[in-house]
Amino acid sequence: MTLADQTETRATTVPTRDEVFGAHEGGKLSTGLTAPLGNARDLAIAYTPGVADVSRAIAADPSLAARYTWSNRLVAVVSDGTAVLGLGDIGPRAALPVMEGKSALFKSFAGLDSIPVVLDTTDVDEIVETMVRMRPTFGAVNLEDVSAPRCFELERRLIEALDCPVMHDDQHGTAIVLLAALRGACAVQNRPLSGLRIVVSGAGAAGVACTRILLAAGATDIVLLDSRGIVDAGRGGVKADLAAVTNPRGVTGGVGEAMAGADVFVGLSSATLPEEILSTMAPEAMVFALSNPDPEVHPDVAARHASIVATGRSDFPNQINNVLAFPGVFRGALDAGARRITERMKLAAAEAIFSVAADDLATDRIVPSPFDPRVAPAVSAAVAHAADTPE
Amino acid sequence: MTLADQTETRATTVPTRDEVFGAHEGGKLSTGLTAPLGNARDLAIAYTPGVADVSRAIAADPSLAARYTWSNRLVAVVSDGTAVLGLGDIGPRAALPVMEGKSALFKSFAGLDSIPVVLDTTDVDEIVETMVRMRPTFGAVNLEDVSAPRCFELERRLIEALDCPVMHDDQHGTAIVLLAALRGACAVQNRPLSGLRIVVSGAGAAGVACTRILLAAGATDIVLLDSRGIVDAGRGGVKADLAAVTNPRGVTGGVGEAMAGADVFVGLSSATLPEEILSTMAPEAMVFALSNPDPEVHPDVAARHASIVATGRSDFPNQINNVLAFPGVFRGALDAGARRITERMKLAAAEAIFSVAADDLATDRIVPSPFDPRVAPAVSAAVAHAADTPE
Repeated sequence: MTLADQTETRATTVPTRDEVFGAHEGGKLSTGLTAPLGNARDLAIAYTPGVADVSRAIAADPSLAARYTWSNRLVAVVSDGTAVLGLGDIGPRAALPVMEGKSALFKSFAGLDSIPVVLDTTDVDEIVETMVRMRPTFGAVNLEDVSAPRCFELERRLIEALDCPVMHDDQHGTAIVLLAALRGACAVQNRPLSGLRIVVSGAGAAGVACTRILLAAGATDIVLLDSRGIVDAGRGGVKADLAAVTNPRGVTGGVGEAMAGADVFVGLSSATLPEEILSTMAPEAMVFALSNPDPEVHPDVAARHASIVATGRSDFPNQINNVLAFPGVFRGALDAGARRITERMKLAAAEAIFSVAADDLATDRIVPSPFDPRVAPAVSAAVAHAADTPE
Repeated sequence: MTLADQTETRATTVPTRDEVFGAHEGGKLSTGLTAPLGNARDLAIAYTPGVADVSRAIAADPSLAARYTWSNRLVAVVSDGTAVLGLGDIGPRAALPVMEGKSALFKSFAGLDSIPVVLDTTDVDEIVETMVRMRPTFGAVNLEDVSAPRCFELERRLIEALDCPVMHDDQHGTAIVLLAALRGACAVQNRPLSGLRIVVSGAGAAGVACTRILLAAGATDIVLLDSRGIVDAGRGGVKADLAAVTNPRGVTGGVGEAMAGADVFVGLSSATLPEEILSTMAPEAMVFALSNPDPEVHPDVAARHASIVATGRSDFPNQINNVLAFPGVFRGALDAGARRITERMKLAAAEAIFSVAADDLATDRIVPSPFDPRVAPAVSAAVAHAADTPE
């Protein structure tokens, strides 16, 4: 994809409501046959009596299900509808169009079959139990739009309970692409990631995962903010764990104190970032205002105080879009026959995304376009390679 | 379809093992997109930010999920793998190729999307609970290859628990096609169904459902056999219920006593039917030897003692194949927005199948070919009409 193409795909007009609803009539997915069923011979091969031989073979050796069914390449996109986009807890039925879209992206970007599974329960025990019972149906679980902090326990327990790749994309997809973009930004500015003062605003699913992956990638100075201010040991659960490994300078207070002299702002909450606070950042600052659809600060305003600005929006440069990560991550994990998506695989995915953009970086091109066709194959190959490497 | 075509599709060569396994590599299903996702504008329509409008609309009015997602046209083919084909309890993984085939048939014959759901539990409570939790995911349930007598309770409880069409095809699909074929046979012989002495051999899923639909269609003299002989009030559960409405002449004993002077034999067990017993049937007898892949009696042997012979096999005339029923039954139920598949809808389906063949009946053409393209639309229209008619 040329730069002109990238610019063109970014400069699209906003679709109308009629276009959007029209495109959703009857849903966005369909199932198809890999071979025709037009006559008795087709039927005798794909159904009775032929299929009995295949069923018998799998009964004798269950590992053959991976070869002779679609399950091993099938990603279940699972949601309870409790944290859908920026819409909150709208329930499983209203979440389904998003999950269909996600399944469509798996097909379109990574050639993986995928089905939405929307669940009419928000109980973690029940969701885990349901997926365990359904286990022979699919080959991987993309957990989606589950509210924090339940999402942390749910992902952990699904990983324990299922012998297949499981990833909560709102956490790790975002984190992988953020890390790739930050690596790109560092390369543009010729600065080491380890020397940056980083503020992560928002300690939900994405904020927690971004903090963790940045630490794993070598960041040494992260201040994490939630709605109560700088996260300290007084918080519970996951946040207490993160308090122990963040804020090495012992800053106290809120966003004002955290942002004074900061090099990097990572916005992952819907809180607005006032320009007067932004103006206190260090020179050559980087702003990742990732709230959707409304960034914490408008990119034009951010640009007055920062050298590099990224958002989640397709109509501005430097779009941090999960679609750069999840299709290739799952494809690589399934290609490798991995039972887990490890930290090493996530870091490899980020490095692969960065590498695709590495020879053509600029302040407004710190990540590849979501439609760069090189990305998914690069991510998938890197993830599969990392899967085959011991931790 | 011409008669020559029908004959040709029947006279196919048996597929080789290599052909069968080759056709199953990677499974038989795939998911597809109903619209492309090739650029940022496509993404803005099908995914963020456009999809948020659709999700918001469904959150405000959940009935819109039927219009703007695929769920309302999606049939879940659900199995626990306890009674797969003639293979028995081979488990959910080994059952999956059969369920994929079934899903492919829904698409191919009725244009319905369908996904297999194979469950790693055989507990009726757990299966019901799982499907209730998954309810927002799909629009109908085709229950498949669940062992008797659990299948009766499971189907009943799923019908109670889910506000959508549920049908155990091994029961009702078989029953609908058998009734259509028997209507065809009666028309060929110009005899009323109500006057026939009928023996149903096998009181599993199909035997019970066939007995019930024949009674509902006007049969008055059915003797039901299980492995212990003629079913009487001493049996438990479903069989005791059937004992009360069958065997009006009070015949006692086994298959020999039941078959003496019978007009119709319906074989739905794997028990062999000896020729000496067959020879005791009444003149102009009809034999439906439906065990697969091996009929209770070879069609050539049966033809020595019966005027009309039907089997489940594609390589003999008069194939009793569920594919004549289930695609159109579910399509009609979903087209009509029906919450239940009623007895009236099943009877209408049988009548529609019979009607398609009615002007071209012969002793070796009592049902249409499974590939007759008129069948599914006729069944679907009849079922939808019956759904709109009060019981």
